[in-house]
Amino acid sequence: MRSDSASEKNSIDGARTPGIDDVLEAAARIRPHAHLTPVLTSATMDRMSGASAFFKCENFQKVGAFKFRGAVNAVFSLSEDTVARGVATHSSGNHAAAVSLAAALRKTTATVVMPENANPSKRAAVEGYGGKLVFCGPSQESREETLARVLAETGATFIPPFDHQRVIAGQGTAALELLEQAPGLDVILAPVGGGGLLAGSALATSGFSPGTRVFGAEPEAVDDAYRSLRAGRIQSLRSTNTIADGLRTTLGELTFAVIREHAEDILCVTEDEIIDAMRLVWERMKIVIEPSSAVAVAALLKSPRLFATKRVGVILSGGNVDLGSLPWERKS
Amino acid sequence: MRSDSASEKNSIDGARTPGIDDVLEAAARIRPHAHLTPVLTSATMDRMSGASAFFKCENFQKVGAFKFRGAVNAVFSLSEDTVARGVATHSSGNHAAAVSLAAALRKTTATVVMPENANPSKRAAVEGYGGKLVFCGPSQESREETLARVLAETGATFIPPFDHQRVIAGQGTAALELLEQAPGLDVILAPVGGGGLLAGSALATSGFSPGTRVFGAEPEAVDDAYRSLRAGRIQSLRSTNTIADGLRTTLGELTFAVIREHAEDILCVTEDEIIDAMRLVWERMKIVIEPSSAVAVAALLKSPRLFATKRVGVILSGGNVDLGSLPWERKS
Repeated sequence: MRSDSASEKNSIDGARTPGIDDVLEAAARIRPHAHLTPVLTSATMDRMSGASAFFKCENFQKVGAFKFRGAVNAVFSLSEDTVARGVATHSSGNHAAAVSLAAALRKTTATVVMPENANPSKRAAVEGYGGKLVFCGPSQESREETLARVLAETGATFIPPFDHQRVIAGQGTAALELLEQAPGLDVILAPVGGGGLLAGSALATSGFSPGTRVFGAEPEAVDDAYRSLRAGRIQSLRSTNTIADGLRTTLGELTFAVIREHAEDILCVTEDEIIDAMRLVWERMKIVIEPSSAVAVAALLKSPRLFATKRVGVILSGGNVDLGSLPWERKS
Repeated sequence: MRSDSASEKNSIDGARTPGIDDVLEAAARIRPHAHLTPVLTSATMDRMSGASAFFKCENFQKVGAFKFRGAVNAVFSLSEDTVARGVATHSSGNHAAAVSLAAALRKTTATVVMPENANPSKRAAVEGYGGKLVFCGPSQESREETLARVLAETGATFIPPFDHQRVIAGQGTAALELLEQAPGLDVILAPVGGGGLLAGSALATSGFSPGTRVFGAEPEAVDDAYRSLRAGRIQSLRSTNTIADGLRTTLGELTFAVIREHAEDILCVTEDEIIDAMRLVWERMKIVIEPSSAVAVAALLKSPRLFATKRVGVILSGGNVDLGSLPWERKS
């Protein structure tokens, strides 16, 4: 199969390390389409962390996650001719829904390659936003082959889930807004999976608030980013056994390069800490966040040495949860 | 026992029907203490209802419910001498937490009479805000006797849960804010139990936006307000069998009088409609609301004849839920 050549031919533009201008360009491009999400504070969270925390609510973003920012930036950067042939991606998560809605807004077609065994609610989300589903087997190989076939047959452009400058820059607009909404932050905390959000946040912060340090937060069970920073090259996953389903991914070449240059460090948290933080936010802040978001909250609560007395921005990355199966029930 | 005399002696001031000036006074009094809660919109809810809906998020209010407004207004209206003897109430719900926190802010003591069999999380909330618990038996008689004894022994002032002008006026400040945050509303929807929120909302609206109609929303299972308006006098409950635990109460003399004069009508919804609306708001708006709040959302969705094409304010009354026991699990 010609997975690589097809992907390359249909890439949105030559992949390169993004710069701060890409974030500014993204901010202007997504403004008509994305929500400027609110920033919430909580006396309870401040008391428990010792910090002054500012929660950037990407759970209120369209499609319920920050992923919409990168998808819109990528899809709306395509020329009329190119976008007319459609866009495609592989994902069983928020990126799939984000690309579907971005394509609908650009009045083109999104084809989403998804494993046959994906959660029915994920399928429904894609279809709800007008995306077209193409199923593949559960292996990485089947996914890539299927995507390559779709790209070859349709001429659609591949929108990668994280490792592209347009996607990274789009994700960085959340931190850009946060820095304006909560001036003078000492720290920003963002969850890290493939690294699009963390790289974008670190990049935006380096440009607009160089005194603010940016930390990633990662489940111990999938601590590849933590190990990659220490090893100086991308490390693979040793397990995917985390409730934070958005973070079961290794870094990409570009996200790794940006994180290495601009992020301070990665903080790891346990599954119990994630679940406790998630429940705490639901109970006390009255907002629905998904486990990946709770990873950043857990890091805030776990490290008073780093964060007490500081002004800390926490990016709540999304709020898409299966309400019929909540983690504290499985835990108890 | 001297329930009545003790209660009367310790009442916060002679009960009377509140006027619009009471709402303005309440707004000024609570401003330093209560959150000006945000108003959210949702494309999904608008599509499903056909309306333009504006959700007033009292789930984000201190103690997680609008009840804080009335409690602060009542407690802060007391003289220094009176308040020094403490305040007391009977409640196993949000009013108990609200009076506890209001008392703590006024640097006095709240005594809360609560049935021995009350939910442990309700006890913990009162104690978390510094309230002092006194337990009673499960009957209305035991509750009143116990409260009378507390009032006689301590000299504390009774803060009624809804049927007092200071409480009604305090609850009315939510609608007052909403009318400023979302100008030109055609309708406001609020849940009705004892009627403090609905009476306050209708009163505030009559004064500041007389063209806006105010509807109450009530579970069919406890449709006493619906029947009371039709009968022209207060009707008792025929059951308390609703998931909306904040609404298992009949109207009071004052709330009934205000609602009769200023509210348009009461809309009734089924238990399934309440649960579906609650889940929908959690899933699509990513906020945690309690069943009582979902009653108003269910009424919005149920009555396109009344609300389609209209600008509708919906008061989400609170967000205190036992996350370990969610209704859609019991239902399915």
